[in-house]
Amino acid sequence: MLVSDLNNVRYLSGFSGSNAALLVYADGRTAVLATDGRYRTQAAKQAPDVEVVIERACGRCLALRAATDGVRRLGFEGHVLTVDAFDVLSRTLVDHASTDLVRASGAVESLREVKDAGEVALLRLACEAADAALADLIERGGLRPGRTEKQVRNDLEALMFDHGADGVSFETIVAAGVNSAIPHHRPTETVLAAGDFVKIDFGALVAGYHSDMTRTFVLGHAADWQREIYDLVAAAQRAGRHALAPGVALSDVDAASRQIIVDAGYGDTFSHGLGHGVGLQIHEAPGINASAAGTLLAGSAVTVEPGVYLPDRGGVRIEDTLVVGEADAPELLTRFPKELHILPI
Amino acid sequence: MLVSDLNNVRYLSGFSGSNAALLVYADGRTAVLATDGRYRTQAAKQAPDVEVVIERACGRCLALRAATDGVRRLGFEGHVLTVDAFDVLSRTLVDHASTDLVRASGAVESLREVKDAGEVALLRLACEAADAALADLIERGGLRPGRTEKQVRNDLEALMFDHGADGVSFETIVAAGVNSAIPHHRPTETVLAAGDFVKIDFGALVAGYHSDMTRTFVLGHAADWQREIYDLVAAAQRAGRHALAPGVALSDVDAASRQIIVDAGYGDTFSHGLGHGVGLQIHEAPGINASAAGTLLAGSAVTVEPGVYLPDRGGVRIEDTLVVGEADAPELLTRFPKELHILPI
Repeated sequence: MLVSDLNNVRYLSGFSGSNAALLVYADGRTAVLATDGRYRTQAAKQAPDVEVVIERACGRCLALRAATDGVRRLGFEGHVLTVDAFDVLSRTLVDHASTDLVRASGAVESLREVKDAGEVALLRLACEAADAALADLIERGGLRPGRTEKQVRNDLEALMFDHGADGVSFETIVAAGVNSAIPHHRPTETVLAAGDFVKIDFGALVAGYHSDMTRTFVLGHAADWQREIYDLVAAAQRAGRHALAPGVALSDVDAASRQIIVDAGYGDTFSHGLGHGVGLQIHEAPGINASAAGTLLAGSAVTVEPGVYLPDRGGVRIEDTLVVGEADAPELLTRFPKELHILPI
Repeated sequence: MLVSDLNNVRYLSGFSGSNAALLVYADGRTAVLATDGRYRTQAAKQAPDVEVVIERACGRCLALRAATDGVRRLGFEGHVLTVDAFDVLSRTLVDHASTDLVRASGAVESLREVKDAGEVALLRLACEAADAALADLIERGGLRPGRTEKQVRNDLEALMFDHGADGVSFETIVAAGVNSAIPHHRPTETVLAAGDFVKIDFGALVAGYHSDMTRTFVLGHAADWQREIYDLVAAAQRAGRHALAPGVALSDVDAASRQIIVDAGYGDTFSHGLGHGVGLQIHEAPGINASAAGTLLAGSAVTVEPGVYLPDRGGVRIEDTLVVGEADAPELLTRFPKELHILPI
């Protein structure tokens, strides 16, 4: 199989450079990693168990290698390879009629869906860095009226680094006041004010693994409507967490949480899926939403993140990252408290 | 044309969410942006000039829209669309025999290669944030023996935010001592020591636009071999900058710089291309390397970044971001000095 997706290459070989492909043999022969000259030293260090070939056109070079090695069926990642890149591979193999390209879309992602102990340990570290950063931010008075969304973002990201993050999982969302009604809001110069919801969705990256957590706070005093939707989202989030068990249909997990919001009359304000897998990518298998096929697997790391967003007023999202257990309850990786937290102003 | 690449969607419509596609008509009809429910508010705000359709399966929905609108030739991005996604589009259009899918790979990227004044202004801001952050880092004593690569990275990234960055352009490289011989090194706990090269490759992100700069310092005292390769790379970098003019073959720009390193006997240690375009992506057209086809265009924003890397000893890279002028010399956007800077220890 020709592995083109860089996260899949990293998962299988350890190599984390930005240009690579990997040829994996079904018969146990040593895998071959292709990358370019920038990564000669790094590849030798990170991927000692594979043969390294230095060549900028990684996919083409490995397809030829497979053909000359007598491979009859060469798997390719149809969900990764572009139409143009596939054409290049086909043309490369035009003189090797005995090598067929066969679709193997998602094969490596399926392996990645279940995390091993080493991967869970890295996810735990990533979630701990995020937990500690948020706790520090609040202890230092970083969430108070007068500060801007961008200042909060900057502090929070710096604190994640202080607590061991290699990077951020994705662009940090800090959304104050009416901006909290925007599910994915980019921080602006908006100034936090008394009575605001402040919704923070962020994550830390540790050795390639992503954490993902959302907490929503209120500054100073919570109005009745704010308490109402906060409690509603908290109840829906709890139901979603409690539904996490191996063998449960993904769409049923979504429904377990969503139904609570629907019953309260806010169904149309919950405009996204309940959650998603996390690992080497911030969004990976499984997706947890109403139209998802399949069931949860023990060892999957997933988010549970219902939300209610009231345009021009404000919104609440509460999100955790958890690992689905074998028989026990899921392991909660994001441990920052979820009770309605009214910050002093 | 069905535009699937998210940077191309942003370039044409202003919308910057993570799930979108754009249908652009050749006859000037209003373009249609598809995105999912998370982005309803953001899409209306960022892309007021287009029609917004809320639908998770963006590409499929717009292909159907084109077909029902009577479009005969629907362009698609073959360099972006995966083999599997293309199959979905084909199946979607199976009942619309009068709509043909035609390849339009790279069409929008060609437009993006030449920056307009607004884009150059954003690149300038991004480069200024990076310049100011590096100057601050040094003024505060951030580069001295005893500090780790990761500490330097964390400080530098926080300072970029302080100076107006929305994010970092890419994972910051801080490579001390022998690590500087690794062209793309990830910061580790390695401690900076007297006599080390410290190579820093980093950039700031402002409103989607990326800056890119590399500087290499010496701590305390430069050995003769360090001065030799520093002066060599500086001369090669100067030659590369001076070769930037509209109409010049991209491979000739690479050669103008590379030849100096080859002549000095270090050709095989310069293991990557001379540079690349920057804009909404950190790497975009044009590539400047030995095998690049085509010529430089006035208004292109490009990097010039030769390097010499001596395994197990150390390496130097010097990189600027510049905008190719109409007739004048290129505009230098990364203005931090490039003379050999020996930091006090």
